[in-house]
Amino acid sequence: MSLTNINVRGYHIDLYGHVNNARYLEFLEEARWELLDKTVDRDKWHRQGIGLSVVNININYRRPAVMGDRLEIKTTLERIGRKSVVLKQVIAKTGDRRLVAEALVTFVIVNMKTLQAIPVSDEIRAELTAING
Amino acid sequence: MSLTNINVRGYHIDLYGHVNNARYLEFLEEARWELLDKTVDRDKWHRQGIGLSVVNININYRRPAVMGDRLEIKTTLERIGRKSVVLKQVIAKTGDRRLVAEALVTFVIVNMKTLQAIPVSDEIRAELTAING
Amino acid sequence: MSLTNINVRGYHIDLYGHVNNARYLEFLEEARWELLDKTVDRDKWHRQGIGLSVVNININYRRPAVMGDRLEIKTTLERIGRKSVVLKQVIAKTGDRRLVAEALVTFVIVNMKTLQAIPVSDEIRAELTAING
Amino acid sequence: MSLTNINVRGYHIDLYGHVNNARYLEFLEEARWELLDKTVDRDKWHRQGIGLSVVNININYRRPAVMGDRLEIKTTLERIGRKSVVLKQVIAKTGDRRLVAEALVTFVIVNMKTLQAIPVSDEIRAELTAING
Repeated sequence: MSLTNINVRGYHIDLYGHVNNARYLEFLEEARWELLDKTVDRDKWHRQGIGLSVVNININYRRPAVMGDRLEIKTTLERIGRKSVVLKQVIAKTGDRRLVAEALVTFVIVNMKTLQAIPVSDEIRAELTAING
Repeated sequence: MSLTNINVRGYHIDLYGHVNNARYLEFLEEARWELLDKTVDRDKWHRQGIGLSVVNININYRRPAVMGDRLEIKTTLERIGRKSVVLKQVIAKTGDRRLVAEALVTFVIVNMKTLQAIPVSDEIRAELTAING
Repeated sequence: MSLTNINVRGYHIDLYGHVNNARYLEFLEEARWELLDKTVDRDKWHRQGIGLSVVNININYRRPAVMGDRLEIKTTLERIGRKSVVLKQVIAKTGDRRLVAEALVTFVIVNMKTLQAIPVSDEIRAELTAING
Repeated sequence: MSLTNINVRGYHIDLYGHVNNARYLEFLEEARWELLDKTVDRDKWHRQGIGLSVVNININYRRPAVMGDRLEIKTTLERIGRKSVVLKQVIAKTGDRRLVAEALVTFVIVNMKTLQAIPVSDEIRAELTAING
C-alpha cells in the first residue's frame, strides 16, 4: 500500500471548474511511480529487459475535485493473474476522506524488446505481492 | 457517428516511446467536443442549465501509437439509459485500421447549478440518438 | 524565496527522452502556487476581486532533465514595477545543483471582473516583497 | 510560413476560464511539427543523426483565448545565426485576427548522440530558409 499526496492547482482545472478527467490519469501514474520506487527494484527489471505495460484502466469519477483540494491516492494490489496484474487506486479528499475517484489499472509484464506480454514469474509475483505487505 | 483525426507528435510521447495513457483521454475528449459541435445545440443546453458529466471511463489499450502515427477516432452512441448515456470511442491507425485503443465513456446529464444528475429527457434522447444517424 | 521539489516521471518525458518544454511551465506554475500559499492571502485577494495574470514567460532551457531526476525549483521576486511583477524561477537538479532551466515570469495585477491591469498597490507591494524576506 | 488551426476545448481551459499558459507551448509545438512536416526532410535528419533542441522560448500572452475560440498559429523563420535558429510564432483568433500570444522560439542544431550544438550547415540553412519561401 502506498499513499501519494496531490495538491489541486489552477492548471489541473478545466472548463467546468473541476480537475479534468485526463489529469486524474496523470495523478494515478504519479502514484504508481511512487509505489514502484518503494517496492520494486527497477534497475533489475531494466537489466532483465522487462517492464510494465498498461492494458486497461477502468475509472469511476465519484465527486469533483476543485482548486485548493488536497487529494490522497491509495494504491493497493488488487490481484495477480498468470499474465496480468491489477492495481486498485483510490483518490479521496485529505481530511474528510470523501471519495473523488477510484480506478482499477491492469498491467501485463512485457519483454521490453518485443513488447510481448510474458508470464508473471514467481520472483515478480513476490515483489508485487509485497505492495500490500 | 463522428470521425476525428489526430497526428501523433513529440509531446504526446512518453518515456516508453508511445503515446502516454493519460494523453489518450485528451484525444477522446477532443473527439467528443467535435461530435457535440455537430450534433448538439450547446447554446440551448447552456440556456437550460444542463450539461454532461463523465462518471466512468473504461479504456483498453490494444497497441501502442508512436511518433508520426495518424490516428482516427470513431465515436458512436452505445446506449442511453434512464439517467446515463454511454459513448463508444475507438482509436485506430489511419490507413491500416489497426486498433490502438477502445473506450466506453459513461455520462450523466446534470443540472449545472446543483451538479445533480437528472433523467434523460425525451428531447435530449432524440438529440443524442441522432449521433448514430 | 520558495523551494518546490518535483520528481521527473514517465509522463513528463517526451519523444527525445527529456522533460517536454511545455511541461516545465506546469512545474513553474506548481512552484508559484506553492509560493502563493505561503506568502499571499488569496482569500483577501479573492474578496477584493483582484488576481494575477501572466503576460510574459522567458525561459532558457539549459540542460535536459531525464526520468528519475529530482528537481528543485527556487522562486524569488526579481522586481516590482508600477504595474507589473517579475518572478525569477530557477530549476536545478537536486544534489549536484546543475542548472536545468531558468525563467522570468512577468505578471500584472488584474481586476478579475474587467481583466484590466491595475497599478500595484502599496499593500500588494508589501505582500509580494515579503517573498524574498 | 505555415498555418496551424486549433479549436479551444474544455481540457485546454484552466481555473481562470482561459487557455492555460503551459498549454500554449503545446499549441506552438504542434504548429512546429506541422511546419517541419512540410519543409524539412526529417528522415534525412534522422539518418544524419541531427535534430533540433529548443534553448529559449520567449512568449507574450496578449489576450486570453476561451472555450470555443478558433485559433490560427502562423510560424515564420525570424533569423538564422551561425549556431542557432529563431522561429516566430503568432497565435491569433481566426476571423477577427485578434492577437492572443506571440513567441520567439530559439533552437540549436544538435548531434543527437552527443546532444552538443553544431554549426548550422549550408544545407540546413537552405532547408530552413525555405520556410518563409
